[in-house]
Amino acid sequence: MAPLVVYAGKPSERAAYETSLTRAAEAEGVGMLLCMDPADADPAEVDYLIITGSGPVRDFAPYTRLKALLSLWAGVEDILRLPLPHGVPLVRMVEEGLTLGMIDYVVGHVMRHHLDIDRFIGAGPSGEWGTGAPPLARERHVGVLGLGALGSVCAGRLAANGFRVTGWSRTEKRVPGVRCLAGEGGLGRTLSDSEILVLLLPLTADTSRILDARRIGMLPDGACVVNAGRGPLIDHEALLAALDAGRLRHATMDVFDVEPLPPEHRYWTHPRVTVTPHIASVTRPETASLSLVRQIARDERGEPFTHVVDRAHGY
Amino acid sequence: MAPLVVYAGKPSERAAYETSLTRAAEAEGVGMLLCMDPADADPAEVDYLIITGSGPVRDFAPYTRLKALLSLWAGVEDILRLPLPHGVPLVRMVEEGLTLGMIDYVVGHVMRHHLDIDRFIGAGPSGEWGTGAPPLARERHVGVLGLGALGSVCAGRLAANGFRVTGWSRTEKRVPGVRCLAGEGGLGRTLSDSEILVLLLPLTADTSRILDARRIGMLPDGACVVNAGRGPLIDHEALLAALDAGRLRHATMDVFDVEPLPPEHRYWTHPRVTVTPHIASVTRPETASLSLVRQIARDERGEPFTHVVDRAHGY
Repeated sequence: MAPLVVYAGKPSERAAYETSLTRAAEAEGVGMLLCMDPADADPAEVDYLIITGSGPVRDFAPYTRLKALLSLWAGVEDILRLPLPHGVPLVRMVEEGLTLGMIDYVVGHVMRHHLDIDRFIGAGPSGEWGTGAPPLARERHVGVLGLGALGSVCAGRLAANGFRVTGWSRTEKRVPGVRCLAGEGGLGRTLSDSEILVLLLPLTADTSRILDARRIGMLPDGACVVNAGRGPLIDHEALLAALDAGRLRHATMDVFDVEPLPPEHRYWTHPRVTVTPHIASVTRPETASLSLVRQIARDERGEPFTHVVDRAHGY
Repeated sequence: MAPLVVYAGKPSERAAYETSLTRAAEAEGVGMLLCMDPADADPAEVDYLIITGSGPVRDFAPYTRLKALLSLWAGVEDILRLPLPHGVPLVRMVEEGLTLGMIDYVVGHVMRHHLDIDRFIGAGPSGEWGTGAPPLARERHVGVLGLGALGSVCAGRLAANGFRVTGWSRTEKRVPGVRCLAGEGGLGRTLSDSEILVLLLPLTADTSRILDARRIGMLPDGACVVNAGRGPLIDHEALLAALDAGRLRHATMDVFDVEPLPPEHRYWTHPRVTVTPHIASVTRPETASLSLVRQIARDERGEPFTHVVDRAHGY
């Protein structure tokens, strides 16, 4: 019998996912019963539940035969705060659209800081001419914290664009063209080298406020920070102090402790800060649906899911 | 006998080139007599003259045994206006540093326009959150006019960053991953597709004002233009009219008819224009000297120069 798949994401995206999930199931030849509103399904009959950290389903107890919880988001820290059923795999979203969008964002903002493009936007007549060309990418050290599904491909693409990239992760990883470091000592070496630092860590107990005053102090003078991971990776008061002091050149941030970022927050008006409204990368229904359908097909064939969350480590 | 090589570039860069030419000759094992000031050399004894369009040597008649004129610049239109000796090859500068710097500039500014980064710089509190992510690079059409030494590698790198790239050149070229078109019909098709258009053509009689009102009219609504080639490639009044009308979203320009761009020029203050002061790419003494020394070594061994200027075509 075809499995019952229930969409419990944002109601505003229901129509888009109905179309794209139906299309993906057809394209992949996967039979499934699709229900686009958890209120319309008997929880005891549901095989796969598609969820977000802020979706309508908060109580999973009635879902007694669930084969998996499928997250629409790459970051699952909000989902992990919910009372999840034991023994049911939670699968993170890894999908082509989200990954490619993140690569674009990271390469774009690293290039912007590398070339110091802001200096020329609306700057008016300049006395200098033909001088002050930036160093070459191959002379620029970029650090990437986090070498997971997103961090590793972003680090690789930065290296392909010529940058000298050091990647850091909790456990040892290998990324072609990237110097990979791990552990606390590796973190210090990564930070002290990073003229431009990109944060792509998951938010866990270990990574919360990982970029604190002490570690910000390890960055070279004039460094730029790009946070495309999660807001609480950073001690914001320490970051603001370093920006105020001119110790850091710029911080570009897409994620914050509270989102939307409150209008009175200093980041909005700080001359050394750029706020982007959590658009570095978004899950795109078309490619995300393909990923969801393929995960379901894998499980139905008796194959393991990919990207299952390790609840002990929080990602 | 070792050939006499005379540096006739900018006096301000003389010291840097003395160091880097000496080092490059040693590194390559090429014997040469190096003279850093044309006033110190007997013109009749000079084998190779290193020049720019604005250097101290304007009369080449006394240089009776020249084996080649070696340009420090990639663009040679200013040199071609000088009364050059007949039968002496003029060699354009193609060097790694200049090429890599141009790739950085082009990728950086194309990414900036692709992601519409300017919208977020100093923008203040935004009502939108988590919506309005840009399309993916693979959904973005970028056109590159000019597929020479710089254009072809920039087009290739843009393609490697996921963009859908169309390259156009006078004669047919092939660049892996890039749709290459040629001729007047190909130019129209390139322009009508280009959401972001990059100019990397040489300045010749054929390319002067190639981007005129008619061809600007072929660009899609909201297109951006990046000129990293030469100023006179563009009809500036037509470009300003299209920007004023909001037909084009932005123009980022590194090169101008008159440089430095006069302080009263509208480009300096136009909200849809970014001026960079001819820094997209600069000849870097270290890598340029290696290129010069290798050209000389090639000639001394009886091998042909690379990148000899075709005076009929002007590049």
